[in-house]
Amino acid sequence: MELISGTKIAEDIKNALGEQNLDKGICPNLAVILVGDNKESMIYVGLKENAARSISGTTSIIQLPAHITKEELLAVISTANNEQDIDGIIIQLPLPDHLAPWQDEFLEAVKEEKDVDGFNPSNRGKLIGGKPRYVSCAALACTEIIDRYVQSDKGKNAVLVGDSFDLILPLSLILIKQGFNVQVISEYKPEWIQNADILVVEKGSPKIVKGEHLRDGMLVIDAGFYWDSGKTHGNVDKDSVSKISGHLLPVPGGMGPLLIAKLMENVCQAAIYNRSI
Amino acid sequence: MELISGTKIAEDIKNALGEQNLDKGICPNLAVILVGDNKESMIYVGLKENAARSISGTTSIIQLPAHITKEELLAVISTANNEQDIDGIIIQLPLPDHLAPWQDEFLEAVKEEKDVDGFNPSNRGKLIGGKPRYVSCAALACTEIIDRYVQSDKGKNAVLVGDSFDLILPLSLILIKQGFNVQVISEYKPEWIQNADILVVEKGSPKIVKGEHLRDGMLVIDAGFYWDSGKTHGNVDKDSVSKISGHLLPVPGGMGPLLIAKLMENVCQAAIYNRSI
Repeated sequence: MELISGTKIAEDIKNALGEQNLDKGICPNLAVILVGDNKESMIYVGLKENAARSISGTTSIIQLPAHITKEELLAVISTANNEQDIDGIIIQLPLPDHLAPWQDEFLEAVKEEKDVDGFNPSNRGKLIGGKPRYVSCAALACTEIIDRYVQSDKGKNAVLVGDSFDLILPLSLILIKQGFNVQVISEYKPEWIQNADILVVEKGSPKIVKGEHLRDGMLVIDAGFYWDSGKTHGNVDKDSVSKISGHLLPVPGGMGPLLIAKLMENVCQAAIYNRSI
Repeated sequence: MELISGTKIAEDIKNALGEQNLDKGICPNLAVILVGDNKESMIYVGLKENAARSISGTTSIIQLPAHITKEELLAVISTANNEQDIDGIIIQLPLPDHLAPWQDEFLEAVKEEKDVDGFNPSNRGKLIGGKPRYVSCAALACTEIIDRYVQSDKGKNAVLVGDSFDLILPLSLILIKQGFNVQVISEYKPEWIQNADILVVEKGSPKIVKGEHLRDGMLVIDAGFYWDSGKTHGNVDKDSVSKISGHLLPVPGGMGPLLIAKLMENVCQAAIYNRSI
């Protein structure tokens, strides 16, 4: 399979956004609410800071102590909602254990107009009927690739493995409405994908998807992520799929950079909106 | 196939609600906003009036002239939102052509706490993450039947035909989260349903689903509705499926009465909530 460079596409998207921001004289500001000091979260926040800088934007990192209460966190979100200088707001997940039970309440508290992660129920709900202001960046990363690599959606078969609220569920709704036949399965089983034109595998285990399961011409999007001996892997065994024709968005260098680029698109859209009101 | 009596199950649900309302001394009031005098809509509104009466509830039919403007309709919805005596609000669809482009805006205007149709984006969005206050009655009618007739969801295959915002999209999300393998196809094709344990057919044409397409033991939910020579038909050819084992929720006497009973459940829940605040 031909490897799609998510990194390259992400760079192109960010370059275009950077030029657009310079042209319009806009410096979008993304607020990132980070509770505690989870190391992985700190890495992701760093990547978002770099991305914002690369599009001539800025970030406001609102770092809060791990022991903050529910009410205190809601108050911080409310302040950010009303802060004119903040264009978009994300809450870096996962939250500490004592706050996790209210995750949906926190996501709902981010006001729709600044909800650049597309996680507010009102933005999610408009995937079912209406037009969401923002869509989850993981789902957008997939549709970016599908738009580029799949000609004509009608009657094509998409198989999605997983059930996540940020990728699989919103993507399934988008693809159903585009006219794909969509199959969502809770675990990866090779016999289920024999007619797939598109395969998105979020739930699985390292290298579970083998070349012999696939057919020529497919588009495969690897949305898994595992660390092993200092290396990152996805769900797809890249070596074994090399002889199949088609395209693979691999791990690393695929979904990761792409979804940050799509987040930057949402942030720029939020900045334009914020300056228009 | 054994025919499931949606009428009988609906009666049982409404009887239980009626007793519960008498016990609690609650008389739930459903406001139905009806624009114009579409004959089919008038029939449906009549059925809802009867159902409300049967559970010791009432309806407030807010009948508006067909030529009402967008702003006037939004004002009516806003008044109903604030009216203490109204527990639940539905907008009878379809709207006249000149209002149809803003349908989503009207549905969004019904406040979440009174949105007994589950059509407000915020209620829909919580199907993706969180817990909706109300779920679309058509989807609830299907889950009522699936809960009764399908043992253990895990790994079962559900095939849904259609893409409607009130049935297929919410039902797909509910079933994915319950652990079903869910396939949503945009048109009925017999070769797609060979492994289905559950089949829900909303989009099709009269009697398109034949016995020879089905396998023994399936649950089939017919969500089609057609008039022909004074009779109602669904998507399933009842005669041809009679020799297959399994269960069929047929048309007529299936989804129709059931979804009104589920609406009454939502209205009673709204009434209890309204009296608690």
